[in-house]
Amino acid sequence: MDKNIPYKIYLEEKELPTAWLNMRAVMKNKPAPLLNPGTHKEMTFDELRGVFCDELVKQELNNTDEFITIPQEILDFYKMYRPSPLVRAYFLEKKLGTPAKIYYKFEGNNTSGSHKLNSAIAQAYYAKKQGLKGVTTETGAGQWGTALSMACSYFGLDCKVYMVKCSYEQKPFRREVMRTYGASVTPSPSDTTDVGRQILSEHPGTTGSLGCAISEAVETAVKSEGYRYVLGSVLSQVLLHQSVIGLEAKAAMDKYGISPDIVVGCAGGGSNLGGLIAPFMTDKIRGIKDYQIIAVEPASCPSLTRGKYAYDFCDTGRVCPLAKMYTLGADFIPSANHAGGLRYHGMSSVLSQLFDDGLMEARSAVQTDVFKAAVTFARVEGILPAPESSHAIKVAIDEAMKCKETGEAKTILIGLTGTGYFDLKAYEAYNNGTMTDYIPTDADLQKGFDALPKM
Amino acid sequence: MDKNIPYKIYLEEKELPTAWLNMRAVMKNKPAPLLNPGTHKEMTFDELRGVFCDELVKQELNNTDEFITIPQEILDFYKMYRPSPLVRAYFLEKKLGTPAKIYYKFEGNNTSGSHKLNSAIAQAYYAKKQGLKGVTTETGAGQWGTALSMACSYFGLDCKVYMVKCSYEQKPFRREVMRTYGASVTPSPSDTTDVGRQILSEHPGTTGSLGCAISEAVETAVKSEGYRYVLGSVLSQVLLHQSVIGLEAKAAMDKYGISPDIVVGCAGGGSNLGGLIAPFMTDKIRGIKDYQIIAVEPASCPSLTRGKYAYDFCDTGRVCPLAKMYTLGADFIPSANHAGGLRYHGMSSVLSQLFDDGLMEARSAVQTDVFKAAVTFARVEGILPAPESSHAIKVAIDEAMKCKETGEAKTILIGLTGTGYFDLKAYEAYNNGTMTDYIPTDADLQKGFDALPKM
Repeated sequence: MDKNIPYKIYLEEKELPTAWLNMRAVMKNKPAPLLNPGTHKEMTFDELRGVFCDELVKQELNNTDEFITIPQEILDFYKMYRPSPLVRAYFLEKKLGTPAKIYYKFEGNNTSGSHKLNSAIAQAYYAKKQGLKGVTTETGAGQWGTALSMACSYFGLDCKVYMVKCSYEQKPFRREVMRTYGASVTPSPSDTTDVGRQILSEHPGTTGSLGCAISEAVETAVKSEGYRYVLGSVLSQVLLHQSVIGLEAKAAMDKYGISPDIVVGCAGGGSNLGGLIAPFMTDKIRGIKDYQIIAVEPASCPSLTRGKYAYDFCDTGRVCPLAKMYTLGADFIPSANHAGGLRYHGMSSVLSQLFDDGLMEARSAVQTDVFKAAVTFARVEGILPAPESSHAIKVAIDEAMKCKETGEAKTILIGLTGTGYFDLKAYEAYNNGTMTDYIPTDADLQKGFDALPKM
Repeated sequence: MDKNIPYKIYLEEKELPTAWLNMRAVMKNKPAPLLNPGTHKEMTFDELRGVFCDELVKQELNNTDEFITIPQEILDFYKMYRPSPLVRAYFLEKKLGTPAKIYYKFEGNNTSGSHKLNSAIAQAYYAKKQGLKGVTTETGAGQWGTALSMACSYFGLDCKVYMVKCSYEQKPFRREVMRTYGASVTPSPSDTTDVGRQILSEHPGTTGSLGCAISEAVETAVKSEGYRYVLGSVLSQVLLHQSVIGLEAKAAMDKYGISPDIVVGCAGGGSNLGGLIAPFMTDKIRGIKDYQIIAVEPASCPSLTRGKYAYDFCDTGRVCPLAKMYTLGADFIPSANHAGGLRYHGMSSVLSQLFDDGLMEARSAVQTDVFKAAVTFARVEGILPAPESSHAIKVAIDEAMKCKETGEAKTILIGLTGTGYFDLKAYEAYNNGTMTDYIPTDADLQKGFDALPKM
């Protein structure tokens, strides 16, 4: 054990970041704008404010301000569970016998079980400030819905969650946490919306998808007086709020004179990775340090590693704006054996642009390898990681083992997004040896690409 | 918000206690000794070492040393998840509108989800040091089994867990966490032991009890070469290890010039409460401050509030030593509607003696009141508390509301033992309004008293 570096580094509350960091302000090539799906023209503030809260639309469209002050009410809530710990993975290093120095920024010490709360509380705050009655959203694995229900409960807002049907059925406990915080939870597709009824009639046996749940949540928001839609990932505003992860991680490292060589995070829609890398990426763009930044995605949902960089629909119902992103097509649904989140068909426009510019790399992993890494980590570090987070652990272990071969003592920073307490069905399958992998064929993916909108 | 007191107080790693505190050394009336169930003579070191590790037997019998050094290997493990936060419940205070100052010592930020890990790692360490192959134990709600499986995995020990059958069936996820850490989990009563087979033949439909699972685990340990039995509560050694909770809490409070007027914790076998109160009780015995110390137990399993202070069997199979404790009788099983832990028929000999000496008080609560307090707490403090911990929350809220009436600004310290992520079935019943209460009648309890051993 390095005498100077404690196992856990906690910043003090007064060291909490007071502003979010907006990577877009520093990016040379800005992310492509959202387009109106009918006219293919750039979405305006006025068009977007029917769907999102005004202040969040401003943040969504803001490509110029590098720092955006965090309101005091949000800072107060952050103090409930932040600063989150930066942990030196001494036990994992020892287990691997690697000279690498591994750190993880752990976002799982709150009841939502993940980093999602960082943006949920911000979005709920702006909805409350605007005098709204409530918000609608979708949730897949359930972390986002849980986080939003906690945030809405705190501000006394109504919260309507459309939960992907297969998760609703497989994860009744997540549903119950949301209900405990006062949210209503509807399995999607449902008969409560036009788009849900249409999807049900076309695909009667469907177990749902994020894209479909988004369509239902947006329709409900637009049709309900005093409601807006909120989203837990993909959007630039969400990455902005999540920058608190990276800012804290960098502040904690700076305090001890540590600088990562590799920053690795899982990537589904991009909320965690976009937040984790924010201060490192801006330094990298400015030429301060050439960090190696790695996105890890499931081999079963490989938007960055095998997707197309193109304008696409954000939702199955095609009611949302078009976004330019690495995408597998709006109808893509990961195979049924895929466990956990990271199942969205596209990637944040911000991250897509950074990837396209060669500023970060991407890797994919099959889930049996991911769970193997998860169990290795759990047994030595004492935290049962979420399947999502374990994608980053898998690649961090790969990199640490490379260091073992070369003798390099690289410093690796992992974004450990959350805990796997609600993913024990998947762990059970892994423990029983019944977990399987699926990698889509090129032909599978081509169907999604063929359905991309003609621009 | 009090400017000088942060929301969360974290001690630094170097401030971790380096010795456990043994209340027995300070108690004027020592807890009654364990007796041989056959001869009714005091159990000797040699008799006990067939069941427990040598070092743990020494700790069990040690009524004289006030401080016992924590071995470095255990301190290293503690650093994975300790010091645990002491949290000022600002949001709860505001919600209640009370002048009381409420703090909680939160032990749930580890994968076992509770304080149980504090003793599990100590017991696994001494087993490893003695060169044993493995340990056996029982678990009810599953926290202890999870904690022990984590500790055994860390030291490379085999871990055989007998899990109360109704929990095994109702809580498959806890079971899966234990398996992820490499433990074998057997529903109890089982056909793997003589006592299990006997209980199954006498009570074919039984869903099991802690007392029965203890008997099976002890039998397996005694009959297996290189194995010993370990226990997660009740024993004096366990309270000793758990003193790290109270020592940290007091150190964090001392650092900010805070002193509690009321210390409140839930009590099942007594491990949490005995650890939480340790430094406060020793000060109280020495006349330094007259803390109000409150044990809270379920109305459905009221050993302190309605039990008899007598020698009793620790287990259903009557193979363990006799302990003098407040007890409901070794065959007592809480009614089937009882959710969560705190279901042991007796109370730690140490706490029983302190209670009998008038040094602490005890209250009971019905579970619908407990869950009401849990949901109130979850919604404002952002932590979904374990049903067990929520007993303490319930009484803390009662006391804070008394302060609201009287205008007193008492300082209340709650032992928040863990999280409720694996108790969502119970939360679901509460959310749906189908949770019921049960208070045993005097006649129910009399049956248990009639079966107490004749001394």
